[in-house]
Amino acid sequence: MAELMTRRRLLALLGSGAALAAKPSLAVVSTQAEAPLQPFTGPGPNPYWNGVGPYVTYPQKLPLQRLTDRPIQLETPRQYFTEAFTPNAAFFVRYHLSVIPNEIDLAAWRLKLEGNFSKPMELSLPQLLHDFKPVSIAAVNQCSGNSRSRFQPRVAGGQWGNGAMGNAMWTGVRLQDILERAGIGRGTVQIQFEGLDHGVGPVDKGSGRFMKSFDATDAILGKAIVAFLMNGEPLPMLNGFPVRLVVPGKFATYWTKHLTFIRALTQTDNNFWMNPAYRIPATPGGNVTPEAMATGKIKTVPIGTVDMPVRSFIIEPDGSAPLIRNMPAQIRGIAFSGRGRITKVEVSTDDGKTWQHATLGQDHGVYAFRTYTYLWTPKSAGAFTLAVRATDQTGSVQTDQAVWNPGGYLWNRIERQEVTVLSA
Amino acid sequence: MAELMTRRRLLALLGSGAALAAKPSLAVVSTQAEAPLQPFTGPGPNPYWNGVGPYVTYPQKLPLQRLTDRPIQLETPRQYFTEAFTPNAAFFVRYHLSVIPNEIDLAAWRLKLEGNFSKPMELSLPQLLHDFKPVSIAAVNQCSGNSRSRFQPRVAGGQWGNGAMGNAMWTGVRLQDILERAGIGRGTVQIQFEGLDHGVGPVDKGSGRFMKSFDATDAILGKAIVAFLMNGEPLPMLNGFPVRLVVPGKFATYWTKHLTFIRALTQTDNNFWMNPAYRIPATPGGNVTPEAMATGKIKTVPIGTVDMPVRSFIIEPDGSAPLIRNMPAQIRGIAFSGRGRITKVEVSTDDGKTWQHATLGQDHGVYAFRTYTYLWTPKSAGAFTLAVRATDQTGSVQTDQAVWNPGGYLWNRIERQEVTVLSA
Repeated sequence: MAELMTRRRLLALLGSGAALAAKPSLAVVSTQAEAPLQPFTGPGPNPYWNGVGPYVTYPQKLPLQRLTDRPIQLETPRQYFTEAFTPNAAFFVRYHLSVIPNEIDLAAWRLKLEGNFSKPMELSLPQLLHDFKPVSIAAVNQCSGNSRSRFQPRVAGGQWGNGAMGNAMWTGVRLQDILERAGIGRGTVQIQFEGLDHGVGPVDKGSGRFMKSFDATDAILGKAIVAFLMNGEPLPMLNGFPVRLVVPGKFATYWTKHLTFIRALTQTDNNFWMNPAYRIPATPGGNVTPEAMATGKIKTVPIGTVDMPVRSFIIEPDGSAPLIRNMPAQIRGIAFSGRGRITKVEVSTDDGKTWQHATLGQDHGVYAFRTYTYLWTPKSAGAFTLAVRATDQTGSVQTDQAVWNPGGYLWNRIERQEVTVLSA
Repeated sequence: MAELMTRRRLLALLGSGAALAAKPSLAVVSTQAEAPLQPFTGPGPNPYWNGVGPYVTYPQKLPLQRLTDRPIQLETPRQYFTEAFTPNAAFFVRYHLSVIPNEIDLAAWRLKLEGNFSKPMELSLPQLLHDFKPVSIAAVNQCSGNSRSRFQPRVAGGQWGNGAMGNAMWTGVRLQDILERAGIGRGTVQIQFEGLDHGVGPVDKGSGRFMKSFDATDAILGKAIVAFLMNGEPLPMLNGFPVRLVVPGKFATYWTKHLTFIRALTQTDNNFWMNPAYRIPATPGGNVTPEAMATGKIKTVPIGTVDMPVRSFIIEPDGSAPLIRNMPAQIRGIAFSGRGRITKVEVSTDDGKTWQHATLGQDHGVYAFRTYTYLWTPKSAGAFTLAVRATDQTGSVQTDQAVWNPGGYLWNRIERQEVTVLSA
């Protein structure tokens, strides 16, 4: 039996043009148990598609990569993104606070509409189920900090790879229908959302309560739903059981889990999670320089004032095995945008010099993952850099421009994948 | 924060009608790291959908459940079966022998046609790619022993749950085209297949070589392909890189991994893996009793002489969370048959007393997984037993009849899932 290779040695070999040139026809893979990826601390960008957390299992979940323990943050491994819908058991988890619900007494649970409503009310789950018309929408839930580990220079915050995203079919009640029943009072400036997760200690101070608000005039309130089903099943506890807010096109920070309080505010919400947290520079693409930020003169706005930019990802091939010259290979993955339907996905096999149209998969709606495939038959051996870029119906297209802002938000640079083609 | 619960306690609670009657509206789930499932040794059937192996990671693979280490046997967790195609990284692994290839030198590798061919030949990978017309087929690869842990009384062999199966789009060369080029010699009675995996010690004795054969007149030879792509990518090493035999409708034991030798035999193959291994009673459905087997009078035949029976599985809901009364829930999963297209999937929510038609998903071909969905809105709280049965175009339909044979093969009884519905 051939010498066994560690994953690190394997990666080194596959990544080394010299080694390949020396032995171009060797397809190597170890079958030994995989060694954990080497942690990275920078200063360079994370070189892996995912973050480097260990696999852990939680109830209702497949093994996911743990970013942090308290609060719980779990990243979805790359391989789950070959299909348009992300399994509930593989869906990423991101909490901000350490106290999270482990059980819900549905007989006691109520969705509470408080504050400046003409008819403040408490809705039971049966009321949500019976008294409103159910609706469904496929929508991507993506952490604002997804891909933060690419930022240069490095920024603080969870060093997510690309796995802090997922697409599900959400079923629930239109937020607008609920708000209309409660009657938004004159003078309401924002609608605030809060769930059951909270911090240790007094919950009414500082950052111990996770509250998010939209302006009362924001059109997104007409698109949001209070979801009680995720891909046809009750939401996993770690994804917000019994109901969570679904805000199509917006980042996940607004998708309040365990949604329990909806408040009509007569003043702008300035709690920690609205200000200073989750703000972006009021610049094109949220882009700025560290130097400009340091001046203290850059105006910021809540990230909820923008929609998610267009993105696309190569899922396969993933570089774990070489391709073979003259053997057709399917390049595939997903694309999405918070700004409109995906209209085009292009693939490059020469590091972005030239682009070819990929074939788009089924259209599951404006806010869903759209799968794509591109059949590539490499005509020569060697190292290749694949790239993918998507365009949405607003004409937004991904570029090679890296974004930078202190929160590590809005990353949407063109993604690349190194692959090796053997001569066979 | 509520008392934390172990998974075992949670399962006990959810499974206990008494506990639920006492507190019917409590939806409970722990967010603590999941405890390993309790191993089971019988004498009863494995109560879990999957086997109870620990999650392990291997190169090119997501964490899978390890059944055995040498030979490597890895089971696919239930949650991967919501879609028609099983990701390569999640595809189950089953070797028989402990020495498996860790690297392949493609410049030296050849597919060798030996024995009673008129033109014995060696084909390089480039020849396979260039000299033949490529074809693709979606087909289920299922271990003969899939679900063996259900057998009563228990039988020897790997105690698989239901996860020793997967569906992929296989691309390669028709076996028939290769055989025709080599010219099957007069007097050939069987065609034999062997790969690179082998046993420790002399490979020419006993069971140290894994060889499988079909009769030269078997129509299956006209359907088989020598596949070099799996879902558009080179096969993972653990699934048979660089080529494996794909035998649509037949059990996986014939899907030779790392296929390297194709032999035209002039005598019936009686090597260990054809006889006594992988044989079934020549009885309807391969069914027999331990007592009848003990008489030594039961005639057996290779499992390759039959096609896989029709099967279907409930993937969601999986019992990890309660359903809610009056809340629509999507029952979904997959069905397949080695005997013909899936024409009907029926779901029962009352333990098989009454059945309703499920909606079939996209048809990916006769031999592929066919997804199904059934929307169920439970109208009362309590414990329910879901069941699913499939029918194929030959009229074969699953029944509640448990099969038994000493190999633990051909299990296809109607699958069930206990769920709890809370009153909310």
